[in-house]
Amino acid sequence: MNQPLRTNTFKEYLVAQKKIIDAALDRLLPGDGDCPRSLARAMRYSTMAGGKRLRPILCLAACRTVGGEETDALSTACALEMIHTYSLIHDDLPAMDDDDLRRGHPTLHRVFPEGTAILAGDGLLTLAFEVIAGDRALNDLQARLIMLELSGGAGYSGMVGGQQADLDGEGQDISPEALEYIHAHKTGALLTASVICGAIAGDGNQEDIGLLRRYGRGIGLAFQIKDDLLDIEGESEKLGKTIGQDAKSGKSTYPSIWGIEASREKLDQAIASSLEALKAWGEEADPLRRIARYIGTREK
Amino acid sequence: MNQPLRTNTFKEYLVAQKKIIDAALDRLLPGDGDCPRSLARAMRYSTMAGGKRLRPILCLAACRTVGGEETDALSTACALEMIHTYSLIHDDLPAMDDDDLRRGHPTLHRVFPEGTAILAGDGLLTLAFEVIAGDRALNDLQARLIMLELSGGAGYSGMVGGQQADLDGEGQDISPEALEYIHAHKTGALLTASVICGAIAGDGNQEDIGLLRRYGRGIGLAFQIKDDLLDIEGESEKLGKTIGQDAKSGKSTYPSIWGIEASREKLDQAIASSLEALKAWGEEADPLRRIARYIGTREK
Repeated sequence: MNQPLRTNTFKEYLVAQKKIIDAALDRLLPGDGDCPRSLARAMRYSTMAGGKRLRPILCLAACRTVGGEETDALSTACALEMIHTYSLIHDDLPAMDDDDLRRGHPTLHRVFPEGTAILAGDGLLTLAFEVIAGDRALNDLQARLIMLELSGGAGYSGMVGGQQADLDGEGQDISPEALEYIHAHKTGALLTASVICGAIAGDGNQEDIGLLRRYGRGIGLAFQIKDDLLDIEGESEKLGKTIGQDAKSGKSTYPSIWGIEASREKLDQAIASSLEALKAWGEEADPLRRIARYIGTREK
Repeated sequence: MNQPLRTNTFKEYLVAQKKIIDAALDRLLPGDGDCPRSLARAMRYSTMAGGKRLRPILCLAACRTVGGEETDALSTACALEMIHTYSLIHDDLPAMDDDDLRRGHPTLHRVFPEGTAILAGDGLLTLAFEVIAGDRALNDLQARLIMLELSGGAGYSGMVGGQQADLDGEGQDISPEALEYIHAHKTGALLTASVICGAIAGDGNQEDIGLLRRYGRGIGLAFQIKDDLLDIEGESEKLGKTIGQDAKSGKSTYPSIWGIEASREKLDQAIASSLEALKAWGEEADPLRRIARYIGTREK
């Protein structure tokens, strides 16, 4: 049964959805007896380390919007979180961003051998597809369409392509077009896929899917602009750094290219475009509306 | 149209099949305009670097055996080669086997930055699923069943699990059971999946699939025993090392555990079991029979 929205605050809704998703992830991830214990533990360490579960929550909310039962999209939602988690694990590796902390915990390759971290990422990506293929809540066509959306959003034409462009642009001045490409692909593609996969699981029609794709693109763009703004606001408070210095250090962001005010306008426009795409729906789309506003106003 | 076998020697058949598969891989891999050029080139570098194409050839041969047209299994065959190639790329990384050469060429991370190698592997794994989901030669149920077989064979309960067990066992004495686990999962699982996916693409029934699974397990085991025997024979010739020294260095192999003679017997038994599984079929299974014998007698 779909989680009621109006009787709860939005924060309570997010907490309740996260709890449902975490329980489902726990059921779907391998345990110690299913494969080498090190692999099972590494896959669980990163997936269960926390995170807002934004992609699975979007997936469930889109399923509800087109009239589906959220339970029908629950495994799909978990597959999206597995793909997101694998991308974080690989992105944090020494050969990529070389990060020590993720979601408030040491990164996977700081706790397990680096080879295990690579394999845990590979295992999560593969498991995402296994979960969809084996999901009894989906008919064969739905499973196939979700696979197509998921692989397109996650692969060379989506997330992996965006990560490669980000890697290629490291330490270089990049054009506004290159910045748009990186963000639209690295972050935007999987956010949009999350919405569309939920709509397919909820048996949405072609018109629903077209509108929700527009919604997804809007929140994807908004998410990234807000991220860049938070970076600057956070850094300004902590380090007293100005935007000019940020730009001089070669880090291209929305504010460094367009300035803070124009970036805030672009953020508002992206949110407005997302909300506009939902106007045909009534209260069944309220979670998607609240998520869009949340993306524009979140403080971390 | 299925490639005739009887009019050609087996070697000519392998060459002809490889040519068909390479042309299809070339069509399915991204080009420079489809994603960052570095990513497209890295994905192509490793996939087109050569290799026997054993998995896709098995897939096509299994499709033919159950009465299907090999063209219906061609994209599936390519997906199998993409998964095999991704596993080699990640396995060769410094954090894993740290290999400099693969298929007679420098490994991907020696030619491209290591981060690009990781992403190219991720891109190939994801593309394999995109290819299946988008393959018009398959109906929705076939696509779903192939996805399930492929993800099971490639993931934590298959290939990735075997690679993790191999990594965990490095530099340690491992039991015969652990050796069986590593080989059955690291190599055997994807070889078996190759046969089964071909049978599904060729619309094989449950009985066909059961028999071909037995065939796949037999050749998977034979492949690994033969690999171990070739290692020893090759090393003996080149280095004058004895098996006893191999065992003392802590490298567990079939011959080091059971001795050369018993390993050769196990190899023959595995091939015989594979051939036995095919006895219900006539000449349509000849390619699978020839492949089984080839696996037992190959010299590299």
